[in-house]
Amino acid sequence: MIRYPNGMEGDGLQQKKKTNPIANAANRGMGFESDINDSNNFYNEKDIALITKRPTPINIVKVDYSHGARITDAYFEHQSTTDYNGIYRGRYLDFEAKSTRSKTSFPLGNISVHQIQHLKNVLKQNGIAFFLIHFSLLNETYLLDARFVIDCFENGTKKSIRLETIQKEGCSIRQGFHPRLYYLEAVDTMYFK
Amino acid sequence: MIRYPNGMEGDGLQQKKKTNPIANAANRGMGFESDINDSNNFYNEKDIALITKRPTPINIVKVDYSHGARITDAYFEHQSTTDYNGIYRGRYLDFEAKSTRSKTSFPLGNISVHQIQHLKNVLKQNGIAFFLIHFSLLNETYLLDARFVIDCFENGTKKSIRLETIQKEGCSIRQGFHPRLYYLEAVDTMYFK
Repeated sequence: MIRYPNGMEGDGLQQKKKTNPIANAANRGMGFESDINDSNNFYNEKDIALITKRPTPINIVKVDYSHGARITDAYFEHQSTTDYNGIYRGRYLDFEAKSTRSKTSFPLGNISVHQIQHLKNVLKQNGIAFFLIHFSLLNETYLLDARFVIDCFENGTKKSIRLETIQKEGCSIRQGFHPRLYYLEAVDTMYFK
Repeated sequence: MIRYPNGMEGDGLQQKKKTNPIANAANRGMGFESDINDSNNFYNEKDIALITKRPTPINIVKVDYSHGARITDAYFEHQSTTDYNGIYRGRYLDFEAKSTRSKTSFPLGNISVHQIQHLKNVLKQNGIAFFLIHFSLLNETYLLDARFVIDCFENGTKKSIRLETIQKEGCSIRQGFHPRLYYLEAVDTMYFK
């Protein structure tokens, strides 16, 4: 897992780190990512939608070709687009998934200018663009339209969006066993009604 | 660049290798990938379409966290989906770009079963799915509908598709300076007429 400032948890890879074992189960960004991937597999298997995760971009410095191609020096790059995109009900869908340990608000600090620009481009092309926001310590997940987040990001005076605001402007996502997150229900509510 | 069997050139990363300097300019898979990325930037800047390349998936074995996060052991994975997807004229678009040094046919050997399955899923969702096929030594590029390639892959008796067949069934792509490849013209011809 890649840890970012502002209490954000990024997507990415497992990392050995010192954690509070009690808090551990509830707050893993990896768990959220894995839940989304599980949901995407479910939707794909049922022919409901085709949504895929973009691989984490990696900048490769050195490759050893002596025994096949083995990467010996590389580093993570920040995703310049979003984590997920695909097709649902004939529409192009594009979203970013963010997890936070905050219990009260969603910090905007981990959203990059590139991601905002990408989502604006999606909207220009009449695609569906949103954020999935996971409050790991509350175990609650919300869909929030990208337009709202972009407006907060560009014009807001605060560096976070309050949970109450997200509950009012966004859509709560029902959880289950398989899929873990019925997030396309929220997409239906927000974009197909 | 990742070299595959069957005379295919994959996408991927620059690799120091011995090359024939004369043949070099004409046959780089990297050049084809870079041309597509350049075209996508052009289309995006002009608000014509939003099409992005999926990063090359990499399997990470070891990360050194002593000075930031440095990947010290990893290897390339084959793309289980396709290289590119996005939105154009409100439709979801998904395609794979392949380059070959053959002057007479496009070998199917480098297409994976996963990619075929992915493209079938795109078609099920009513997305636009195709291949961009680049004959590097001829400097010619064609768009070929995914349905045709899938049929050759699954039911064909030959392990390649002849250039003449591609010219008949597909659509030749006009080249320029910027964008390098007017491939959305071919998309218009194939899917919007």
